[in-house]
Amino acid sequence: MKFVLDPKLENDSSFICDLTLTQVRLSHNAAFAWIILIPRLPNMVELIDLSVSEQEQLLKEIRLASHIMRTLFQPTKLNVANLGNVVSQLHIHVIARFNTDLAWPQPVWNSGVHQEYMNSEKQQRISLLVNAFMEP
Amino acid sequence: MKFVLDPKLENDSSFICDLTLTQVRLSHNAAFAWIILIPRLPNMVELIDLSVSEQEQLLKEIRLASHIMRTLFQPTKLNVANLGNVVSQLHIHVIARFNTDLAWPQPVWNSGVHQEYMNSEKQQRISLLVNAFMEP
Repeated sequence: MKFVLDPKLENDSSFICDLTLTQVRLSHNAAFAWIILIPRLPNMVELIDLSVSEQEQLLKEIRLASHIMRTLFQPTKLNVANLGNVVSQLHIHVIARFNTDLAWPQPVWNSGVHQEYMNSEKQQRISLLVNAFMEP
Repeated sequence: MKFVLDPKLENDSSFICDLTLTQVRLSHNAAFAWIILIPRLPNMVELIDLSVSEQEQLLKEIRLASHIMRTLFQPTKLNVANLGNVVSQLHIHVIARFNTDLAWPQPVWNSGVHQEYMNSEKQQRISLLVNAFMEP
């Protein structure tokens, strides 16, 4: 079995990079600094569908993503979540939240807050994140 | 410095048990099978405020909680999340979601869905969970 990215996840986000376990993607909702980590393994739904060593690797990658998001955006709070009620394929949101953002203090999902990136902005944000993830 | 539970978390949930790192509590929202893990350390806000070994212990306890919630409730999907936009003290939600629950597929927070436990129901659920967490 091969890893195939869920079509909705693919449509709603852009590729940033592949880490050891996960693919990192940028959410297309420009209202938030929002990335998504998707383990590149077939048929994963729950965190506990991963083996213990895969969970530990996921934790490492969540830690890296959290440090990067905190350093780049200096948010009020990070939101780190696996929900999966709409897209069941296992994916973890890492979102930099601000007490000034349009959904604060509510969660971003179902907030009704959505903005489109201009193409140049999206490319700029992707480059920023690629560089951060690729740093030694 | 001592660990002090945030007053809102304390008010909105009941004690289930203390694990090695976290205090496990039952949310008072009876619309959902919903527990909360709070690392018993002072001044923690983000997952990455924990040391790496504390994060690994937290992962173990999230894994235990996830297995227990899946076994006891057999949900459609587990939601595992650290948000903290309202209560900044680090806490992780582990929620058993059903495609028949009143908020599905939206997140539980800000869903407007809230039910009160009858006292006997709450005690029953706490006992169920205490027994599950205390099993060898």
